[in-house]
This record gives sequence, C-alpha cells and structure tokens, in this order.
Amino acid sequence: MGYEILGTRREPSFGLDTFGDVENGADGQPVSQAEAIRQVVAEGVLADQVGVDYFGVGEHHRTEMAVSSPDVVLAAIAGRTERIRLGTAVTVLSSDDPVRVYERFATLDAVSRGRAEVTLGRGSFTESFPLFGYSLDDYEALFAEKLDLFTHLQKEKPVDWTGTVRPALEGAQAFPVTESGSLPAWVGVGGTPQSVVRAAAYGLPLVMAVIGGSPERFTPLADLYRRALKEAGHAELPISMHSPGHVAATDELAVAQHFPHHQAAFAKIGAERGWGPMSRADYDAMAGPRGALFVGSVETVAQKIAWAVRTLGLSRFQLKYGAGALPHEQRMESIRLYGEQVVPRVKELLG
Amino acid sequence: MGYEILGTRREPSFGLDTFGDVENGADGQPVSQAEAIRQVVAEGVLADQVGVDYFGVGEHHRTEMAVSSPDVVLAAIAGRTERIRLGTAVTVLSSDDPVRVYERFATLDAVSRGRAEVTLGRGSFTESFPLFGYSLDDYEALFAEKLDLFTHLQKEKPVDWTGTVRPALEGAQAFPVTESGSLPAWVGVGGTPQSVVRAAAYGLPLVMAVIGGSPERFTPLADLYRRALKEAGHAELPISMHSPGHVAATDELAVAQHFPHHQAAFAKIGAERGWGPMSRADYDAMAGPRGALFVGSVETVAQKIAWAVRTLGLSRFQLKYGAGALPHEQRMESIRLYGEQVVPRVKELLG
Repeated sequence: MGYEILGTRREPSFGLDTFGDVENGADGQPVSQAEAIRQVVAEGVLADQVGVDYFGVGEHHRTEMAVSSPDVVLAAIAGRTERIRLGTAVTVLSSDDPVRVYERFATLDAVSRGRAEVTLGRGSFTESFPLFGYSLDDYEALFAEKLDLFTHLQKEKPVDWTGTVRPALEGAQAFPVTESGSLPAWVGVGGTPQSVVRAAAYGLPLVMAVIGGSPERFTPLADLYRRALKEAGHAELPISMHSPGHVAATDELAVAQHFPHHQAAFAKIGAERGWGPMSRADYDAMAGPRGALFVGSVETVAQKIAWAVRTLGLSRFQLKYGAGALPHEQRMESIRLYGEQVVPRVKELLG
Repeated sequence: MGYEILGTRREPSFGLDTFGDVENGADGQPVSQAEAIRQVVAEGVLADQVGVDYFGVGEHHRTEMAVSSPDVVLAAIAGRTERIRLGTAVTVLSSDDPVRVYERFATLDAVSRGRAEVTLGRGSFTESFPLFGYSLDDYEALFAEKLDLFTHLQKEKPVDWTGTVRPALEGAQAFPVTESGSLPAWVGVGGTPQSVVRAAAYGLPLVMAVIGGSPERFTPLADLYRRALKEAGHAELPISMHSPGHVAATDELAVAQHFPHHQAAFAKIGAERGWGPMSRADYDAMAGPRGALFVGSVETVAQKIAWAVRTLGLSRFQLKYGAGALPHEQRMESIRLYGEQVVPRVKELLG
C-alpha cells in the first residue's frame, strides 16, 4: 500500500502525540478524566488548524492518563477537522483483538475521509493485561501472533488464520472496508532489534519511541530496519520518531514549565518500576542538544528536530507534547508554536 | 443512577436509530461502506438539528450494514453536535468485552459532555460470534455473565468478578470514569420474558425491539418488566420501543419509497434464516394502524406513535429510519419530517 502518504525522507511529515495526561485544575486537584479527554480533542483541533500533519493519541488504562479508547477520541477530532491525519501512540495490540482494532480504525478512516492510521505496539504499561484477561507471560507471543493476524486483515478479504493466543478465523472478514483498500499501520518499537526486524519482515513502517539517551543511539536500529526491508524484498518505508518535549517562548520558560511535571510523572511511573528519581541534572542532559527531550524555544526545538531527522533519515517526527499535570493552556501554546513556527523552521533547516 | 434523563412516561423522549444500511448510488451499485458511514454521521447531525432527542447506531459485521463500531461513528457525531443523546441499537455485548465497551462509551460520554448511553443486547445476527471467537452454543451464558460484569463496571470502582466466559478481574478498573458517576445502559430485548426479568433484576431500563406483529403484543412484557422491577425493589425505569419505519409527504409516497427496500432487505436476511418472502399484503398489514411498521405521512406516523406510547407506557420511542438501499436523501427527508413535524404532533396528541 501507499505508505508515502505518511511522509517521506524527501518530505517528512510532522506530528504531535499525547497520552491524555490529566492536568491539575485551578484548585490544584486533577481535572476529571472526561475534561482531560475534551482537552485532547481541543488540542487535536488546534493541531489541525496550525498545520500539523499528524495527531496521535496513546492508549492507557490508568487514572492519570485519560485515554483508553484512542479511536473514540480521534473520531471526535475527525468530526471537527478536515486535514490532519489521525492515529495512535500506541494501540496496545497485545491486549486487544486485531479484528476489533481493524474495524474501529477502518471506521475512523471512514468518518475522517481516509485520514486514519494506527501504530501497533506491545505496550510499555502493564495495566491492560489483567484488565483484558491476558498474562504478561505471553507478552511476546501475543504481539507476534496478533500482528500477524492484523497484516492478514489489512488485505480486507475473508481471512483464514490460526494461532494460539486467539480463536481461529475461517473465511471471516472485518468490516467496514476502507476506500483506499487498506488501513495504514505502523509498528511502534522501544529499541528491540527483534521488533524492528519483525516490522520490516511484514513491510510495515516503523515508529521508534526515543524517550531516553540520544536519538543517535537509534541509528543502528534504523539501519537494521532498512537492511531487513531490503532483504525481505520490500521498498523503503517511513521511519518515524516519537520523543517527549515542550515548546515555549524561551528555553528558560519551556524548561520552567515542563521540568516539574515531567519529573513528577517520571517519579510516579518510576515508583512502580523501580527507577530512581530524575534529578534536574538528568533532565538537563536529556534536554541538551543530543538528548531525547525536545524542550525549549522554537529555534532550539527546530534545530534539534532537523538534526534528528537528518541523523536517522526520518520520514516523520512526532513530538509527545504533554507531560503529567502540565496545564492545558501551556500545551495549547506549545502546539501553536510547534505548528506555526517550529515545523516551518525545521523545513527551512532541512531545505 | 438517574435514568430519568433518558425520558419518562410523563415526558417521553423521541429517537431515531439506524444500522448504517448501504444505499445504492446513482449507478445502482452499493456506495462504499465508508460513504455509508459518513451518511450516518450526516443523519445524526441532522437529527440533532431538527430536535430529535436520541440517535442510536446498531452494530453489525456484514457488507450491507456498514457500522461495526458504533462508538466511533457516534464520537464523530458528538464532535459536530451539542444536544442529542447518543447510543446504540444494539451493542452486541455477547461477543464483545464488557470492559472495552464500558471504556469506549465512557470515552464517548466525555467527548459528548455526558450524552452517551449504550443498549446492550445478545445480537440478532450471528456474524460477530465466529469473528470474535465465540460459540453460538454459549449464546445465553455469554450475555448473562457479561451483563453481570457490565453492571459491576457501572459502579466505576475497582472490580472483583469471576465468571466462565471471560477471565476474572481482581481489583481492576475501567477508565475513564464518567462525570455523572455511571454510564446509562439499556437492555435490548426481542420479546423473551427471561430477558425482561433479567433487565429488571439488574435495575436496567428496557428497549423492546418490535419488528413484527403488533406493539400491543408487547403489553404483557412491559407489565412483566414493571412487576419484576417492583419485586426486585427498584423504582420505575424507562421502557423504550424500537420499530422500523419511514416518513414522507404522503402515505402513498412513504410506502412507495420504503416498501421495495424493506422487502429486499427482508429477503436477503430471510434467505439466511429460512424465512419466506414478504408479500405486499404482509407489508401492508405491518404498515396498518396496529402493525409494527411506522411508515406513512406525518399524521399517520404520529398517530401510531402516540398510540404505541400510550399502549405500552413508553418513556421513549425510537424509529429505525433506514431500510436496505433506501437512499440517503430520502432518509434525510424522513429524519427532517420526524424531528420537525412528527415528534411535535405526537407530543400534542399525548398532551
């Protein structure tokens, strides 16, 4: 299928994504999850208005990240936009049903007039496994088999499929079918070579989540993906990179706004996963010119994106623009600056 | 929870619902399923504009009915409306996951500012069972257990639940939570006393699908439901009725537009289920003053709805306004007449 609509190395696309983090309201208490979801809708609509190419929404099942059903949130955005492409960051395929996922995003594709895509991942959070009755022991088989079934469904014909993690299909078909003939799907990876090779084997474009270290560290993975594509007989496919960040009028303001929320969100997740605390020095290193955090003024962030796009040969860059309780107003300003100033400046730098 | 927002016997609400039937285009061939879905979105938006209280979308997994993911379609409508309530007709709970259903509709509730509801049913079509890996042998247990789990989820707290049709939950919670504290859910029934008693036992409002015979035939079921509610210690709850129909300028025009499409759709389903063909005489009986088909001029349909509301003590009436390849333009005109003229006239008659 024509994956060039997602962006190419010659003409990269620029996106935003969010997990629907729940901000603290005026009283210092978290707003309702419903309000957080409506903020995401408003953010997606603004992203469309300021010329961003792509808006992605992540799936979580927790109190502090409000989006469990990205397709529903994206459909509300689709109802209010005409241009921006809509997808996920990521859809946890391991604990979902590929048939349902295909049907939901094909329906999103219909209501958005062909603007839907999906990023399939194994999930970095674990809540969805017990919630939907899966065992983390099957982490690898669940994703491998479900991705395989998903690629069968992409043909939009009756499917025969047998596996161990889901009942077999015999001539069953997912509906609706899309007008383009298939739903574009990316594979989201954290950095595992095996995942990259698998995406290449299926001929699926790749999103690399670069949330620590340096984007440069992902160069060997991008190379591996391109080699594996070639060996599997596939043409070149888009590589995207997703990284957290925040844009504000100055570097100082961006950091002052972003750091406390990023640190607090990291501490909350770290407490569950046994990570140590994130110091200001850790943060500053990540926010430096070669780190994984895209935070700062328009010029700082644009320079860094242009460098990352060149270094990795990206067809898309997507900024994960929210962080913990970072206020909606500051997220909106970050989106506005990203669409109106950062993206044009990156294009100029790459030009 | 406050089910009076759905309609009351003193002030019934009036809805429309659709299965997203795929019309034939100008060339006589079915339009794409994607186009059919966009027509449903346009129809929902029009229903809101002409003052209809409720818009419901059914779930099917077939070529000639385009909606497999009602929540996604409804979210697109939510993005373009401010007032109309949004729900299903029905959600096939038996072959879905109650946790996912809760999460999707709670998300719809967020994007629509509290306008979401869901109608849970066993499904009258069977495609979803093999598609999602269920056996029709478990038809009864699937619905009974999943409805039970759904009512646990409606409390929006961590859930402990054990059953046979789905892995157990131990302190797991569905997200997002709603702002009202719970998602309104109806039970959709075809006419089985056992289903009616079950809905009453759980304190859930009832939608009766009256698609054949006379609405009067459902009086004993409505009475049974009210008695069962009382015996279970619940207050009175809404009863709704869903029936097919079509409104046009005159009785003759409505029938001329509707009959061939209704007949053809019936023939297609009948061929799968072993029904005999529907003759014009059968149709005319159904379209008569006491039949299940609400087809005709504004006055004819209004008189019949008022009679059905009085006879059954309804809190809501919902007209299933599409039929097979009945053109979108005629559906739009039917919706306009229903909202602008039929509903006001019914209120006058009930007044």
